[in-house]
Amino acid sequence: MPGPVWPTSAATAALRPLPLDDVTFAPGGFLGHWQRRSATRSLPHCIGRLGTAGNLDNLRRVTGEADGDYQNMWFADSDVHKTLEAAAWQLGRTPDAAKLRAFFDTTAALLTKAQGEDGYLNSYVTVVKPDQRWRDLHWSHELYCAGHLIQAAVAAARSGVGAELVAVARRFADLIVERFGTVDDLDGHPEIETALVELYRVTGHRPYLDQAKRFVDLRGHGLLNGEHFGSMYLQDHVPVRRAETVAGHVVRQLYLLAGVVDVAVETHDDELLTAARRLWTDAYGAKTYLTGAQGSRHRDEAFGDPYELPPDRAYGETCAAIAGFHWNWRMLLATGETKHADEMERALYNVIAGSTSPDGTHFFYSNTLHLRTGHDGSHEDAPSQRLPWYTCSCCPPNLARLLASLSSYALTTDHSGLQVHLYTAGEVNTTVDGSPVHVAMRTDYPWNGRVELTVTTDAPITLTLRIPGWCPPDEVQVDGTPADAADGHVRLRRDWSTGATVTLELPMPARVVRPHPRVDAVRGCVALARGPLVYCLEQTDLPPGVTLEDVRIDPSAPLTVSRLPDIPATLTTSANVHAPPSDALYPTGPAADGRGEPITLTTVPYFLWGNRAPGPMRVWIPVATT
Amino acid sequence: MPGPVWPTSAATAALRPLPLDDVTFAPGGFLGHWQRRSATRSLPHCIGRLGTAGNLDNLRRVTGEADGDYQNMWFADSDVHKTLEAAAWQLGRTPDAAKLRAFFDTTAALLTKAQGEDGYLNSYVTVVKPDQRWRDLHWSHELYCAGHLIQAAVAAARSGVGAELVAVARRFADLIVERFGTVDDLDGHPEIETALVELYRVTGHRPYLDQAKRFVDLRGHGLLNGEHFGSMYLQDHVPVRRAETVAGHVVRQLYLLAGVVDVAVETHDDELLTAARRLWTDAYGAKTYLTGAQGSRHRDEAFGDPYELPPDRAYGETCAAIAGFHWNWRMLLATGETKHADEMERALYNVIAGSTSPDGTHFFYSNTLHLRTGHDGSHEDAPSQRLPWYTCSCCPPNLARLLASLSSYALTTDHSGLQVHLYTAGEVNTTVDGSPVHVAMRTDYPWNGRVELTVTTDAPITLTLRIPGWCPPDEVQVDGTPADAADGHVRLRRDWSTGATVTLELPMPARVVRPHPRVDAVRGCVALARGPLVYCLEQTDLPPGVTLEDVRIDPSAPLTVSRLPDIPATLTTSANVHAPPSDALYPTGPAADGRGEPITLTTVPYFLWGNRAPGPMRVWIPVATT
Repeated sequence: MPGPVWPTSAATAALRPLPLDDVTFAPGGFLGHWQRRSATRSLPHCIGRLGTAGNLDNLRRVTGEADGDYQNMWFADSDVHKTLEAAAWQLGRTPDAAKLRAFFDTTAALLTKAQGEDGYLNSYVTVVKPDQRWRDLHWSHELYCAGHLIQAAVAAARSGVGAELVAVARRFADLIVERFGTVDDLDGHPEIETALVELYRVTGHRPYLDQAKRFVDLRGHGLLNGEHFGSMYLQDHVPVRRAETVAGHVVRQLYLLAGVVDVAVETHDDELLTAARRLWTDAYGAKTYLTGAQGSRHRDEAFGDPYELPPDRAYGETCAAIAGFHWNWRMLLATGETKHADEMERALYNVIAGSTSPDGTHFFYSNTLHLRTGHDGSHEDAPSQRLPWYTCSCCPPNLARLLASLSSYALTTDHSGLQVHLYTAGEVNTTVDGSPVHVAMRTDYPWNGRVELTVTTDAPITLTLRIPGWCPPDEVQVDGTPADAADGHVRLRRDWSTGATVTLELPMPARVVRPHPRVDAVRGCVALARGPLVYCLEQTDLPPGVTLEDVRIDPSAPLTVSRLPDIPATLTTSANVHAPPSDALYPTGPAADGRGEPITLTTVPYFLWGNRAPGPMRVWIPVATT
Repeated sequence: MPGPVWPTSAATAALRPLPLDDVTFAPGGFLGHWQRRSATRSLPHCIGRLGTAGNLDNLRRVTGEADGDYQNMWFADSDVHKTLEAAAWQLGRTPDAAKLRAFFDTTAALLTKAQGEDGYLNSYVTVVKPDQRWRDLHWSHELYCAGHLIQAAVAAARSGVGAELVAVARRFADLIVERFGTVDDLDGHPEIETALVELYRVTGHRPYLDQAKRFVDLRGHGLLNGEHFGSMYLQDHVPVRRAETVAGHVVRQLYLLAGVVDVAVETHDDELLTAARRLWTDAYGAKTYLTGAQGSRHRDEAFGDPYELPPDRAYGETCAAIAGFHWNWRMLLATGETKHADEMERALYNVIAGSTSPDGTHFFYSNTLHLRTGHDGSHEDAPSQRLPWYTCSCCPPNLARLLASLSSYALTTDHSGLQVHLYTAGEVNTTVDGSPVHVAMRTDYPWNGRVELTVTTDAPITLTLRIPGWCPPDEVQVDGTPADAADGHVRLRRDWSTGATVTLELPMPARVVRPHPRVDAVRGCVALARGPLVYCLEQTDLPPGVTLEDVRIDPSAPLTVSRLPDIPATLTTSANVHAPPSDALYPTGPAADGRGEPITLTTVPYFLWGNRAPGPMRVWIPVATT
């Protein structure tokens, strides 16, 4: 059962994905637990909200089964589609989930009924402004919604759960090819590009790929009405082939780049792939937060200038992190470079993991790195706590579709072997070059850097283990001896025929991270990290009366790994509290003495912040200046 | 001739303004030169743009003299009104400016003609949605525009240049009182409050004051539709009497607070004045930039959390700085506390002065404190250079009305004497407690801290000279001897009968300014200042190949005052250039050595930035860490 992103055999590919059902996360492992929580809590929560928030009623207004006014954002169909996609992947792995199956079937039937004779399907346009179809593409999200419908259908096709939805998507895709095959027109919000390539991969119908390429190439010529937000917001200011920097609305940019890589690998378009590489260097070299979040500006939900990375006004939309994850996966498949898996891991364990509450039903849309003392959290764009749903609730269903398919992102294969990118407890039953391969993976990752892999196969495969970028390569051990860890991985050949166990030891000491000196917003600060996890300081862990902003850390003090209830690894170190010497906002004269009242500082994994008590939090902690 | 803000004799007032025409700035002085430039360049520029941008045509569409669609923002009338106000103050001082008089008269006539039978006057509503009058007040700006019309009429009344406009404003104000006197409704954008108080001051008609008070008290009860931006954006989340913090859209907040003080002093409402004091402490203690700019967020043009003051994303709208100037002036009159004059001075010489190009025809709408290397300046909200006009061009005419009336903000009087708040070359001919007083002021301020004042009067007045907050009080000299400078001023009694000259020496060494330790965004940085002027570093003053972000300053190095063409005082000091040790965005391990290539750093007054060559600029300069 192919998972999301399944390049054709003709595609440019350094690595190939494993079928989704070839990899099973153990429920007790970190990712397995999370995936299960998403299936049992988050996905049902989303399904419930689609009902109560009115998304499904919008479609029923098209079919005549509901009346009243259209509800929600004009692209609210996309939340239905993303939830359907999540359901499809989930049903592919657990086909006997009866309630989920019922949701899938009734919703697919609703979409079938809501679809126009000609294949058109969009409840907002159909209900609210039927005469405006395709008229307002810079803002209407019609093709964006279509893209998510297609993605849901692709998931349904691959997981074998619903031919009806696939037929709906094909009818709509055929209409899109017919309508847009010869006119110079495109959607303000990318998404259709990657969707059409995926539909091509499912169907082998070449016009879908051609249309995706066409949309990629039409973009950047100012065809879209940029009146309100400007062309850059829509990535319509410069063709992606010539773009030097990621720019504009982050989710739009990253969805586009996922589609760009899909088109590039299927059409062997090296220029496009080179453009994607160039933009990757810009994005991850100067416009990404330590947590993997992207989007430095609330205004326009946008990338900022290079090194503009304010922690307190980090936008870091959850959907952007998911989009970045999707983009990096495609880059990893295309190039085989482990830096892409590094960025997947960074985002996954920090910004993405942090976006959801332990109960799986509350979410951050934006993901700050500093909730200030005195923060006004009354705005949905920067709440102080995770919320159950949003006016624009794109993120929760996006999380659900990612989690339902997460096991497909952990390993890859090539003609000679198997590559492990994400470590978590689980099992792999797959084939490499035609030969069956079984892998059992045991680990407490990310809490512990020890990974035991038992590989059983008659084939002489190479097992490639990623050495994360945070890990000093010369300290990595395999089976107790220093490993030859070059270019971000170790390659192991063994006699696997009777099952050989490899023990990888990724040293995981707590470490102090500094910002690049051009990241002005966190100058004079350090962050703490351990393994892939970024840590943060929460008000709730400070002594009473201490203001978060007054804490100064000693970056040379020892870091101790400890634990708290529900937090397997905290980091503890020395700091002091230094109350401001005066109220003066801009004093003249020498700097105040940095010495203060000594305290022991406990920091917790960023992704767990805000779970014990709401309150101020910061990732970057100022260094004592004495 | 009363200037703007003219409390009645019954008002609570520690100090009283001087008539506008009692103070004349010398054309060769700093403020006089600026005022003249505004009159000869900026005001004609605004008048021209009102024509070419279509603002005047909108009014002509009401009268039938123009056709075509309404142009510009829906509150574009307000730019006409603000320009008219500037013209009125200017004509009051220079009545024989024939072209200006022609503009004033024809525009007043146009407004008269455009006014409805019942007194209503708003070109957008009248032309575009006549059936929506007063229907959409949270967003329509109808009372905001009315407020600026009234302010223009107040200026016309006081300067005696046009009874016609006064009649228009009164008809509209009467309609407003009739319409809003008993219903609980108000405008989303404050401005009408202060305007109605001023109209009450001109006319003595009490219902205007009552209506202003009513609008102040109606606000904060969630009466406005906060659907899109939220109640806080509109200051409708909490009544001002109970508000603890300034919040929401900055210009709205500050215009409201100007009106709050006006209502408070005219109605002897101590609770209101106490609220204004409380909000002042919040605004100027934790939410104001070193340049006097306010507004930390581009999104919603809003105040941020306490100490959230990012230099690179400073919004710092020019109109906000003007509004803050207006608010502080009212606070100064009400309380007599010199800190308010300090903040007027800070804003005036930095953010407000910096908003305009030397030729007086290019403007910043937002006023950043750091233009980053690689900044994308294609957005109007953060351009790299001053622009001649904006889609929302509220700032240029606002500057024009401030500058045309600037001489009314320099001094005050009370029963016992005269207070000098802003130092600039000029002359005062006024009366104190009925006695004529003449003052000649000679100074190169702000380039030099020496101020000579020759006072001639038969009355035994006290001359009070403000000692700015930036000036160490124990170093101030009067006539060569240490002055008794307490509470931000020195008080001098002399025998002025034959003309006595007082020489005030405000020591003006270059100084290093640090941020409050909770201002995270500029931690590890200092700024340079001298007198009231904040300095900045521009790319154009760096050696070729040096990136602005790589400069590290030695805050203990001597600061030398020097000069450049057109810049009377630059500050020069030692720094080094320290290129980033690696490209890694988040390196692990000890901090890089802060030592680098030594350079001599030249900084220039902030208000002059961007005039010689466009390029990166920063106010806050990182300190070398060795």
